[in-house]
Amino acid sequence: MADGPTINTIAARAGVSIASVSRVLNGLPTRQETVRKVMAAADELGYVRNAVARSLKSRRTHQVAFAMADVGNPAYLAMLREIQPVLKAAGYRLVLHSTDAVAADEIDVLRSLGERYVDGLIMSPLRVTDAHLETLAAARAPVVIIGQVPEGTPVDNVRADSRTGVRLAIDHLYALGRRRVAMVNGPLDTVPGAARGAGYREALEAVGLPYDEDLVQIADFYRPEGRRAVAELLARRPDVDALMCANDLIALGALDVLRDAGRRVPEDVAVAGMDDTDLAAASWPSLTSVSLGSAERGRVAAELLLERLNGGEREPRRVTVPPRLVVRASTAGEGHCAEGRSAEGRHAEGSGA
Amino acid sequence: MADGPTINTIAARAGVSIASVSRVLNGLPTRQETVRKVMAAADELGYVRNAVARSLKSRRTHQVAFAMADVGNPAYLAMLREIQPVLKAAGYRLVLHSTDAVAADEIDVLRSLGERYVDGLIMSPLRVTDAHLETLAAARAPVVIIGQVPEGTPVDNVRADSRTGVRLAIDHLYALGRRRVAMVNGPLDTVPGAARGAGYREALEAVGLPYDEDLVQIADFYRPEGRRAVAELLARRPDVDALMCANDLIALGALDVLRDAGRRVPEDVAVAGMDDTDLAAASWPSLTSVSLGSAERGRVAAELLLERLNGGEREPRRVTVPPRLVVRASTAGEGHCAEGRSAEGRHAEGSGA
Repeated sequence: MADGPTINTIAARAGVSIASVSRVLNGLPTRQETVRKVMAAADELGYVRNAVARSLKSRRTHQVAFAMADVGNPAYLAMLREIQPVLKAAGYRLVLHSTDAVAADEIDVLRSLGERYVDGLIMSPLRVTDAHLETLAAARAPVVIIGQVPEGTPVDNVRADSRTGVRLAIDHLYALGRRRVAMVNGPLDTVPGAARGAGYREALEAVGLPYDEDLVQIADFYRPEGRRAVAELLARRPDVDALMCANDLIALGALDVLRDAGRRVPEDVAVAGMDDTDLAAASWPSLTSVSLGSAERGRVAAELLLERLNGGEREPRRVTVPPRLVVRASTAGEGHCAEGRSAEGRHAEGSGA
Repeated sequence: MADGPTINTIAARAGVSIASVSRVLNGLPTRQETVRKVMAAADELGYVRNAVARSLKSRRTHQVAFAMADVGNPAYLAMLREIQPVLKAAGYRLVLHSTDAVAADEIDVLRSLGERYVDGLIMSPLRVTDAHLETLAAARAPVVIIGQVPEGTPVDNVRADSRTGVRLAIDHLYALGRRRVAMVNGPLDTVPGAARGAGYREALEAVGLPYDEDLVQIADFYRPEGRRAVAELLARRPDVDALMCANDLIALGALDVLRDAGRRVPEDVAVAGMDDTDLAAASWPSLTSVSLGSAERGRVAAELLLERLNGGEREPRRVTVPPRLVVRASTAGEGHCAEGRSAEGRHAEGSGA
């Protein structure tokens, strides 16, 4: 930026005095023709954005950014619902980024902090790479990361604990007398899949049940994939009496398949999900689910950032929001009928007006 | 603003030269002590924000705001999911406001356009008052309103048509042979309640069914309120064979009550909701629902705004997104069991880790 355009180069390009350029850039009363010339020259030289950026550099913008992986994902939306009012109450506008979980996009957002269009950033990256860490180290504004970061990363960090979350659910299923507890997990090469798989093994060990590979089925984190995986699992192991599903969408797929197969939930097979989305309470039977505290993670992240923005000089903090088991009818209910068809079996769209 | 602080008054307050103030405000290399003095003086005089604002006035900020009534409402989130990628693709950042449906908040957002922190605004007000219209007329940046505005309002406007939406659902229920079609509506003094009530009357007339006040029940737009209203309605009129519910949450409440009462859905009573939220497909039986095109309204609003930002001088446009009936098992299914308990009857929360 030191080699970039200055008031002098703009004045030369515009053919006006340095004083005129200064007046225009400071918004002081100036002849319209002069304003036009200066702005055109500044534009051509790429000056004004930098000038504004520099001016903002020592100023508050009263804006904070939240960069989430996916604007359609209920877990991020639950964070957003908490972040927005906390920032609003503190007088900040919220700038929203959706990075589509693309690392390059996330790194662009971190780099753009140099433009000082916000005073701080909350980011929820899918996974933190070395490139993230380098850019974070050079970040020009406070950053709070929601998610896993390597030990020692000098940044405020809020994380979930899905591993313990799986244990809560398995303990609950075991306490209900279930002994053939299968796991329908997401892909093991994803951060959540790996953590949930580890939690499953630990939980079985803790209650004294053997780990049986035959009771593990992998699915993508969506309902149709959940259906396919559970159908395969049931064909192979019709004796399962409980299904621990790695998220609510997989669990909804499990309910579909069990209904079609005439298996009662929870009498024959208990079902637990994870994330405790709005869908869990809307399903029938309503779905027992592990809350990973998305809302609370959002709130804590916003509060940590506000502390920094209020000048708090302190060591980076790491906060783990504990999981919580929300028990509903799919594990603890009774008398649910299993006949009928799957919930999505009959979709058809009528015509509009 | 003409009487506000100038470079001269800042220089006097800071005890530095006018040239120094100019250098600082333009981000040119300056001694740190001078920067500190000038910034402190500018702060005290309230200068710099205006200077930045003025500078931005003739610049693009590459930011667009979306002001929604409630960051937790699925209909607005559906809009957000479409608005965000359209703006991102066009190179705009999204600033998010949640106004809590408070008119004064909405008007503040409109007024703040004068600060030119964004290039344009998409707003979804709950209802447009005279104060909105006055502020809109003076707005300093292009605005697109999602919602109803009075005829002749000189602003781009995208609207739903819930009245026709109700008709689509009633036509469908009538075609299925239902003749005692009740309406569980929201409060009649809300814009959606009034429109849906009018749609119900029109729809009955169109298919030749008499309007019977006894078949109309009013509830707030939430599930527990829906439950209470449907229980009252069924007690009064056990002969109803279809329920048109003014939104999906009321319809979920209706499913709860019908289940508890041992009435089969749809054999005994068909149920239709409105808004076609994610909950409709998650419920069981899955819920027939009228989509009011939230996603499409968001997309169209973003496109109209981009047209304006790209310099499009044209008459204000009004676009009505037609409703669409999404038929699922709650009206067109069969063989669904009605025994068991309500989906939320057993909620209990386990402890965290």
